[in-house]
Amino acid sequence: MSEIIATYLIHDFNGNHEKKAEGIALGLTVGTWTDLPQLVQKQLEKHKGRVVSVSPLSEEEGANRYFDRKVYRSIIKIAYPAGNFSNDLPAILTTVFGKLSLDGAVKLIDLDFIGDIEKAFPGPRYGITGIRKKIGVYDRPLVMSIFKGVLGRDLTFHNEQLKQQALGGVDLVKDDEILFDQGQTPFIERIKTGKKILTEVHESTGHRTLYAVNLSGKTFELLDKAKQAADAGADALLFNVHTYGLDVLQALSEHDQIKLPIMAHPSFSGALGSSSFYGVGYPLLLGKLVRLSGADLSLFPSPYGNVALEKEEALAIASALTKDEPSWKEAFPVPSAGIHPGMVPDLIKDFGLDSVINAGGGIHGHPDGAKGGAEAFRSAVEAVLEGKDLAEAASNEEALKKALVLWGGL
Amino acid sequence: MSEIIATYLIHDFNGNHEKKAEGIALGLTVGTWTDLPQLVQKQLEKHKGRVVSVSPLSEEEGANRYFDRKVYRSIIKIAYPAGNFSNDLPAILTTVFGKLSLDGAVKLIDLDFIGDIEKAFPGPRYGITGIRKKIGVYDRPLVMSIFKGVLGRDLTFHNEQLKQQALGGVDLVKDDEILFDQGQTPFIERIKTGKKILTEVHESTGHRTLYAVNLSGKTFELLDKAKQAADAGADALLFNVHTYGLDVLQALSEHDQIKLPIMAHPSFSGALGSSSFYGVGYPLLLGKLVRLSGADLSLFPSPYGNVALEKEEALAIASALTKDEPSWKEAFPVPSAGIHPGMVPDLIKDFGLDSVINAGGGIHGHPDGAKGGAEAFRSAVEAVLEGKDLAEAASNEEALKKALVLWGGL
Ligand SMILES: [Mg+2]
Ligand SMILES: [Mg+2]
Repeated sequence: MSEIIATYLIHDFNGNHEKKAEGIALGLTVGTWTDLPQLVQKQLEKHKGRVVSVSPLSEEEGANRYFDRKVYRSIIKIAYPAGNFSNDLPAILTTVFGKLSLDGAVKLIDLDFIGDIEKAFPGPRYGITGIRKKIGVYDRPLVMSIFKGVLGRDLTFHNEQLKQQALGGVDLVKDDEILFDQGQTPFIERIKTGKKILTEVHESTGHRTLYAVNLSGKTFELLDKAKQAADAGADALLFNVHTYGLDVLQALSEHDQIKLPIMAHPSFSGALGSSSFYGVGYPLLLGKLVRLSGADLSLFPSPYGNVALEKEEALAIASALTKDEPSWKEAFPVPSAGIHPGMVPDLIKDFGLDSVINAGGGIHGHPDGAKGGAEAFRSAVEAVLEGKDLAEAASNEEALKKALVLWGGL
Repeated sequence: MSEIIATYLIHDFNGNHEKKAEGIALGLTVGTWTDLPQLVQKQLEKHKGRVVSVSPLSEEEGANRYFDRKVYRSIIKIAYPAGNFSNDLPAILTTVFGKLSLDGAVKLIDLDFIGDIEKAFPGPRYGITGIRKKIGVYDRPLVMSIFKGVLGRDLTFHNEQLKQQALGGVDLVKDDEILFDQGQTPFIERIKTGKKILTEVHESTGHRTLYAVNLSGKTFELLDKAKQAADAGADALLFNVHTYGLDVLQALSEHDQIKLPIMAHPSFSGALGSSSFYGVGYPLLLGKLVRLSGADLSLFPSPYGNVALEKEEALAIASALTKDEPSWKEAFPVPSAGIHPGMVPDLIKDFGLDSVINAGGGIHGHPDGAKGGAEAFRSAVEAVLEGKDLAEAASNEEALKKALVLWGGL
């Protein structure tokens, strides 16, 4: 039997969560039960939702304060028979969190795919292993950088920025997510000219950099655009999945005329994930769901500096992307925002070798420009892998030293 | 000049919201400004975001309690030049609330489309006027009912339920949003058999009922399925837009081989709209955005009974669906959940004649079944329009009397 088990965090004011869970299990499947004739019960048995567990949580001061009264909390798990929905995420999300998302303080925090339903979702086409193979780097975290200030600029500016980042030794460069298909930097031209530059850099330095171009536009044009991107020699796609829908990501990932690595951007996901009481948990949204829909890399807010995400939550996203799953390859965790070279030891300690170190300001703001910024990151990674501390490594590495002086870490 | 003005509700701990607004206006467009050479500034001027207004709000006890300290609140408005994005909602949402959705307590509460950008969005194909024309009812709120307990049942069951609802005189019947394209009740078969039944009812009673079938499945199959639905004689589509994406709704609405009225279901929208501090405001999400994307009817939680939505917010959704807009027809507001015939006076007082009165349990739970439930609603509407109170009308209307006895209103 195949089913999906949804895990919810519930807050309410009466605490009869066994009853609440029963109400959800029936309400989101067969509707009612005890009133039904026995013959009908027999017919509907295989469609009936099932309460798997109800686990009360301890009282929490913050929740009590917010609701201004005593709040009962629990984690409940409910199983939905896979025969109730078609094998697509819109149907699954409608079933497990359609009406329920509107029904008080309920947050969807996990989905387990049991049995055949798991096979309906492809997972990453390349995954960590496939991306490493494309770049030819197997033994260290990858280093990635982001274009900066490209909106309103022309291809020459875009190309030069790409070149400097690649010359410094980053493994991946991604478009800014707010760069769409513009007249000054058209999508296909970015791919073609970028390809030329990265080939030149590879020929002159031996280092291979992949460029992830932002796939954008109307939904029903995306498959054609992605095919054109593949034909034009694109290395990878950046995709604002949460403004389109996870099912669109899956279609891009599965398509046999596209076959490009996909980097899922978390833009707009804060609208779903930020609340403690409502919405969808980040480890599910930016971890498991983008992975099973086919993202090879997933960006999410880093837990450093003054950002929204708790460290525990960022680690849970990374874990959802990389833990063993029978049907899905691992996807690269890409903790992002506020990253500079002095943070590389923490990044590697927290996210391990199978992660991507991603920076924008920490690359472009380097005193020697993007090339220097990239070199500083690469030196920092090398130092950590050799067991040196950064200050020690900086004595021989000028770019790293300048970065540590500027941003801290000496 | 064309631009989009986004309105945000901001909560933070320092209250320097002028500075924060400037940071957003630059950060989501050109990145930086004062550091740029004058020549570059001149080049980028037309891409630069602009702070329109910053309006501090008074301190709010609930927000202070939740964050456990003094919280500063304000409404800020920022204008984004339309030249920065392509003419599609994924690009617009990524620009105005991509990264920003992850950046602290910020809620997107409105979007104004200024200039040509408005024309990129079709609005409803039929709207209130077009739907009224299809049904032939011009002078009263429409009455709608929902299938109940259809999951796991066969076409015979589905058809009989449809017949009883139509015989009672409802104007619209919608599929349950959790009924997908199942073996027992296949999509096209539901349309064809439903059509036959509703034609028979029309011939025998003179009353025309429209059936909205749930369009479901993988995103890239939807256009074909919707075309097949149109060819099979479908009256209207129900669509779980928030598990697919607003741009998919727009594509369905604009398509010249589909041309069916579309009913937007709010399933999953609670994940975006429920929090006071984060996400997207319901009047924007279930009002303006579904309207401009082409929904002819929009369901949203009614403000009655024990539900999440405040009355003010439900009225604001209805207002966003029906207020005069130069480019978009009006869409029908459909306040839903917990509606029974005794509430019809309140519904008409709150939502006016140009609304849809929608019930599930309040139809099927009637002592005389769905037919009786539908009759009770129609009688209640008639009574209110004639200026009678329900108790008075119930003396001559048996079905209404039974409903008022059961659910209250006498
Ligand atoms: Mg960015
Ligand atoms: Mg329903």
